[in-house]
Amino acid sequence: MNFPTLGQLAQRVGGEVQGLTSLPIHGVAALHKAGANDITFAADEKHLRLVSTSAAGACLLPRNYRGDKTAGITTNLVFVDDPQDACLTLAREFRPQQPPQTVGLSAAAHIAPTARIGQNTQIYPGVFIDEHVEIGDGCVLYPGVFVGHHSRIGNHCTLYPHVVLYPDVHVGNRVILHASAVLGADGFGYRFRNGRFDKIPQLGWVEVEDDCEIGASTTIDRGMLGPTIIGEGTKLDNLVMIGHNCELGKHNAFASQVGLAGSVTTGDYVRCAGQVGVADHVHLGRGCTLGAKAGIHKSIPDGDTQIGYPARPEQEQLKIVMATARLPEMRKTLRDLESRVEEIDSLIEQLTTQGSSS
Amino acid sequence: MNFPTLGQLAQRVGGEVQGLTSLPIHGVAALHKAGANDITFAADEKHLRLVSTSAAGACLLPRNYRGDKTAGITTNLVFVDDPQDACLTLAREFRPQQPPQTVGLSAAAHIAPTARIGQNTQIYPGVFIDEHVEIGDGCVLYPGVFVGHHSRIGNHCTLYPHVVLYPDVHVGNRVILHASAVLGADGFGYRFRNGRFDKIPQLGWVEVEDDCEIGASTTIDRGMLGPTIIGEGTKLDNLVMIGHNCELGKHNAFASQVGLAGSVTTGDYVRCAGQVGVADHVHLGRGCTLGAKAGIHKSIPDGDTQIGYPARPEQEQLKIVMATARLPEMRKTLRDLESRVEEIDSLIEQLTTQGSSS
Amino acid sequence: MNFPTLGQLAQRVGGEVQGLTSLPIHGVAALHKAGANDITFAADEKHLRLVSTSAAGACLLPRNYRGDKTAGITTNLVFVDDPQDACLTLAREFRPQQPPQTVGLSAAAHIAPTARIGQNTQIYPGVFIDEHVEIGDGCVLYPGVFVGHHSRIGNHCTLYPHVVLYPDVHVGNRVILHASAVLGADGFGYRFRNGRFDKIPQLGWVEVEDDCEIGASTTIDRGMLGPTIIGEGTKLDNLVMIGHNCELGKHNAFASQVGLAGSVTTGDYVRCAGQVGVADHVHLGRGCTLGAKAGIHKSIPDGDTQIGYPARPEQEQLKIVMATARLPEMRKTLRDLESRVEEIDSLIEQLTTQGSSS
Repeated sequence: MNFPTLGQLAQRVGGEVQGLTSLPIHGVAALHKAGANDITFAADEKHLRLVSTSAAGACLLPRNYRGDKTAGITTNLVFVDDPQDACLTLAREFRPQQPPQTVGLSAAAHIAPTARIGQNTQIYPGVFIDEHVEIGDGCVLYPGVFVGHHSRIGNHCTLYPHVVLYPDVHVGNRVILHASAVLGADGFGYRFRNGRFDKIPQLGWVEVEDDCEIGASTTIDRGMLGPTIIGEGTKLDNLVMIGHNCELGKHNAFASQVGLAGSVTTGDYVRCAGQVGVADHVHLGRGCTLGAKAGIHKSIPDGDTQIGYPARPEQEQLKIVMATARLPEMRKTLRDLESRVEEIDSLIEQLTTQGSSS
Repeated sequence: MNFPTLGQLAQRVGGEVQGLTSLPIHGVAALHKAGANDITFAADEKHLRLVSTSAAGACLLPRNYRGDKTAGITTNLVFVDDPQDACLTLAREFRPQQPPQTVGLSAAAHIAPTARIGQNTQIYPGVFIDEHVEIGDGCVLYPGVFVGHHSRIGNHCTLYPHVVLYPDVHVGNRVILHASAVLGADGFGYRFRNGRFDKIPQLGWVEVEDDCEIGASTTIDRGMLGPTIIGEGTKLDNLVMIGHNCELGKHNAFASQVGLAGSVTTGDYVRCAGQVGVADHVHLGRGCTLGAKAGIHKSIPDGDTQIGYPARPEQEQLKIVMATARLPEMRKTLRDLESRVEEIDSLIEQLTTQGSSS
Repeated sequence: MNFPTLGQLAQRVGGEVQGLTSLPIHGVAALHKAGANDITFAADEKHLRLVSTSAAGACLLPRNYRGDKTAGITTNLVFVDDPQDACLTLAREFRPQQPPQTVGLSAAAHIAPTARIGQNTQIYPGVFIDEHVEIGDGCVLYPGVFVGHHSRIGNHCTLYPHVVLYPDVHVGNRVILHASAVLGADGFGYRFRNGRFDKIPQLGWVEVEDDCEIGASTTIDRGMLGPTIIGEGTKLDNLVMIGHNCELGKHNAFASQVGLAGSVTTGDYVRCAGQVGVADHVHLGRGCTLGAKAGIHKSIPDGDTQIGYPARPEQEQLKIVMATARLPEMRKTLRDLESRVEEIDSLIEQLTTQGSSS
């Protein structure tokens, strides 16, 4: 491989070099990982402080860091508008390139006669598309994708291997569904009668709005009646569970292993850290944030940050957690106090006796 | 579409209309979602109270609510024996219909010569059935289903796309396995020797009894020796983990993301809410209930309800949780008491000194 | 079936029989499950104590238990070097045998022209291998396995059905990937700008070193830049989540449903029990152990055992848990003390008044 120079790379991202433009660059790496021929980036002052001790050959920095802020730094620097963007642009140059494949509609896929497929959509071998499915333009359906009857997929969607859409799942535009995500399986609904669980038919559907991204092996159940909704721009990480008839607002972001029971609703801009659990019929208010492993049994007001299990407002919970850490000590203090009060009681009794006898 | 009238729909479910029989009905919806041409249902007094404020065109109610209980309600009503059942019956009429497909044994499936398949069983393209497999009558195996050698499936089972049965998995009758469920993977068993984990061969099997339903991406590991058992009528939600050699009783119901370590046993009618975790070799007694996120390290008596982490009987835990909320305040009270006792001590010393000096 | 005798079985594992060599053995079972014609094993004194009450026809024991330790036991015994190993050897004899299949490179698989496949590697129908993939010798890729372009797999690996390797995933030798494991999906990385989450391209890769075993439906995300690494000999159970740019040391063992956020690093020999959650950028020190459901927000020192949420050193946490159980009682004690101090205060006031009035 003929490696590009720092100067050449700087040119591609509109950057100004301070240092050795002739340095050959072998790759892109994170700040703490980069070696003598790697380029890295620092986007804020916290990371700027680590540049001097980094072994990186070169570092991309915000343009306004030129001057005093980088005075003592001997690392080769490249000043750009957006260091992270620039770094990712360069990273792409060092990746093994795979020309976009034009598999068209593979003969080894099953496409039902009543299905309609848009322009420039790639259907890989092993895909199964059932009757009355509609798929838009510019989509890619990787091997093993299953699309149940009457499902609809918009334009420019990517369905990674083994994604399953049960019947009547509606996916908007520019949606990314990662491998083995399952949309539209039956909700967990039973009636307990005569000592058995009778299945309640799950007759609803799923709607995933534009610009959503759904993680690997995440499951989104269909509604019992009506839809389960994932609002526009919402991002779900891997292994997330969304129960039947949940309705998520726009631009939510849920980290891995979050679980929502049935009929949970959320406002826009709700964020859940990993492994959060939410009970059924709860409402998570617009812009609220839930800390990792939080357990939610009651609705959360707009904008609130709650943590812990059972979840409480952050400051309140932190005070409780701190106090909890002192519990063994408090218990000891309490026992000491009890003894002292015992002693005091007997002293007072003595005094009282003395007083009355005197 | 030519919409049916309320009167026509009422007839189909044996209902008596109180109101406008000529109202055209466009669909079925939940009580809080239903519009002027939707029909909904209310099955109990709690939901009955919401009918007046609902925008629903019509509402199915229990027959014995006719009269006083519905006196002031102006919504069109239909009285039936079982409102939820009736509502679901009507919901089916409004769904896009997909005639049951007769794919037979698809030529694009792999069926080993020694496999035996019953009558009216549908094997979709992309299914793989290994040697010595037995499958009963009236089953449906969707694309991507894998059935390992010597596995057995009873009658009238549904295996959704990409369900994987490792070898020697035995599935009863009328079992539903949702997409990407994995039954029979190796249990997590190793011996730590010479600084490495040596794999313990997992030579057991899995038994799923009649009428079970297993959720999407749920995993049930095979036993090391002997079976892992899912008892008759048991329902597991999505993303549940059942470790090797677990033996679940009949009619258990586990919500999403529950995890059981190895060799857990359960009685009949055990219920776990979401994200419960159970340590290995624990027994969950018949009819016990575990609250969401409960962490179980010790066996649970029959009929007990436990919550929290570590789990405790519900009433006990609730008292602890309430007391915990008061901890910061208790800590302050404790410090105040300490100071007061200090003061009292010195007052008493004074008094004692006065007493002895007097 | 013609059952072997205890004597015949003992010979196969180099064991010495104490008891009835002619006993026909029908199968192998766990100690508490074994019947009159089953053989079982006990590897330590704890299990030895259960042998007498077991219904087992015969029991494998460590050779050095011959003599005093087994004096009163009437069960048929077989003394061997390693009872568990011997038992598993015998278990294999009773399993339905499946001769190793030689499917070769199935014509019903898709293998890209630029892919290179080693000797004796079995590629089942329905496998998809993309361009520039390299796979070593003696591997088995079951139906539905997807291998993205430029991915590499070493020798003697097993990829169970529907395993997905995105592009640029590197797997070492003797690695086992269970059904529906997903390696190399995009990390959960976004920049929040103008009210939307913009996707940060995930340009890194995944490295799984030699002798790892990855559970069913476990997901390991690719790095943003650089690799996500699973160190040699590390074992992950089912439904585990490993975030982007995590770097796991050698011989880690994580039980089911553990979740690591991005950029977590671990030393060698780290153990996590089920449902542990670890925040991003945390370091788990060499040889540390985390209890079930532990929530980790700060780095853990080498060799530490931590439990609970928030996690604390085990002994400290146990004290807190015990004290927590006493909280309602402590609260009562505290209130009692308050009243008593009130009383004391007024008594003292009386005394003081008396004192001054006297």
